[in-house]
Amino acid sequence: MTRRRRIYEGKAKILYEGPEPGTLIQFFKDDATAFNAKKHEVIDGKGVLNNRISEHIFENLNRIGIPTHFIRRLNMREQLIKEVEIIPLEVVVRNIAAGSLAKRFGLEEGTVLPRSIIEFYYKADALDDPMVSEEHITAFGWATPAELDDIMSLAIRINDFLSGLFLGVGIQLVDFKIECGRLWEGDTMRIVLADEISPDSCRLWDIATKDKLDKDRFRRDMGGLVEAYQEVARRLGIMGTNETPKPSGPVLVSSKDDGETRH
Amino acid sequence: MTRRRRIYEGKAKILYEGPEPGTLIQFFKDDATAFNAKKHEVIDGKGVLNNRISEHIFENLNRIGIPTHFIRRLNMREQLIKEVEIIPLEVVVRNIAAGSLAKRFGLEEGTVLPRSIIEFYYKADALDDPMVSEEHITAFGWATPAELDDIMSLAIRINDFLSGLFLGVGIQLVDFKIECGRLWEGDTMRIVLADEISPDSCRLWDIATKDKLDKDRFRRDMGGLVEAYQEVARRLGIMGTNETPKPSGPVLVSSKDDGETRH
Repeated sequence: MTRRRRIYEGKAKILYEGPEPGTLIQFFKDDATAFNAKKHEVIDGKGVLNNRISEHIFENLNRIGIPTHFIRRLNMREQLIKEVEIIPLEVVVRNIAAGSLAKRFGLEEGTVLPRSIIEFYYKADALDDPMVSEEHITAFGWATPAELDDIMSLAIRINDFLSGLFLGVGIQLVDFKIECGRLWEGDTMRIVLADEISPDSCRLWDIATKDKLDKDRFRRDMGGLVEAYQEVARRLGIMGTNETPKPSGPVLVSSKDDGETRH
Repeated sequence: MTRRRRIYEGKAKILYEGPEPGTLIQFFKDDATAFNAKKHEVIDGKGVLNNRISEHIFENLNRIGIPTHFIRRLNMREQLIKEVEIIPLEVVVRNIAAGSLAKRFGLEEGTVLPRSIIEFYYKADALDDPMVSEEHITAFGWATPAELDDIMSLAIRINDFLSGLFLGVGIQLVDFKIECGRLWEGDTMRIVLADEISPDSCRLWDIATKDKLDKDRFRRDMGGLVEAYQEVARRLGIMGTNETPKPSGPVLVSSKDDGETRH
């Protein structure tokens, strides 16, 4: 077997050259990072779970007409995707105050926002991914006003879909981060969803218990990360019933829970 | 003389009840503050200069049809203004990278921006005036989308006028901050320029020497603040020729200049 050419390695994923022009292979690592990689750990099985969860979400987004880079899952850790030109923005959609927004505006975590808020962060590790406004984005040419309109429309549709999807399985979608790319098809270009959507890039709270089922468990040293991601996958119907037993009532994330106060 | 009712005291100004309903008196103090008032000093004569410079600018803005709260100057330290409902935003217009924008994006101070950039900061001392986007402003109800459009149009017109005004006297308008208010006239409301425009709220660089003629001299402990503000007033033709001699060539701000490297 010939060695594949590595195109790009990020904190949680690697992109390899794909089998045909215009395709790439997206590999999910087990690495967990936070605070601009100041915190780093390898968490067995995280990559496999994110690959499956992200596949499930992207496949269904494609199905309802929200364009994504996703073609199909190849194996436990890899997806075949379309090659896109990544727009250097993290697009964050927030429904509930948490994380940096709660801090920025002195809001208690868990406060329902007056409406969903879309934020942009410039992807630049050296600058700690600063928050930016549409003015910065268009002035520095990271995206055009028309592209920003497309990105915001995509973000709102994805928020609608994900809010419904998670609500259906007893999970509150607090916020999530997406990245978009320019997909060229001949002379035409359109903005599509790229990267991944997984508990690494969402804040997901159990509606009944407010348990965190996302990467905040890692950021805040709460433990039980893989168990939480497994729980998300189980509720989404992704994991076979053989893999985890399905209890009837609300489920605690982990019996090794550290019992800290929840917000 | 009856004691006037004090309506509001800020870091550099006091607002008193005016002689008629719908008016206020704006008093310019000599206090200089920076870094959210962590740094504070009283600088003799600053208030008088800012009152005169701001009068000159607001009067001329009114004249070219840019609505402001300004009615007339009353004396050395006071202006008669219309009472408005202040919108809790600092609106910053930037032409050249400096200050927090240079830091946020890792740009060298003095870099010409691809185009003028408008930024918004939420006026909240307890939160250190965080930068916000239009999304935050409209979601939290600080201003409506229509009001934001009016604010941005005002900001662009003011930038055009000020850029010309200062260019004419050998000064580069690097950036400036404004505040806007809602002026009610019967049942109709319009957005007008409020607060002040002075070397406290602008970055002004001598075009020839790049000398700073603004509050950065205070922020950066460069000295010569009053002399710099006097120089701005003199160039704008505000101070009588008796007050300061008018040399023929480029003028150094202060002979007590500390000789630090300039950006």
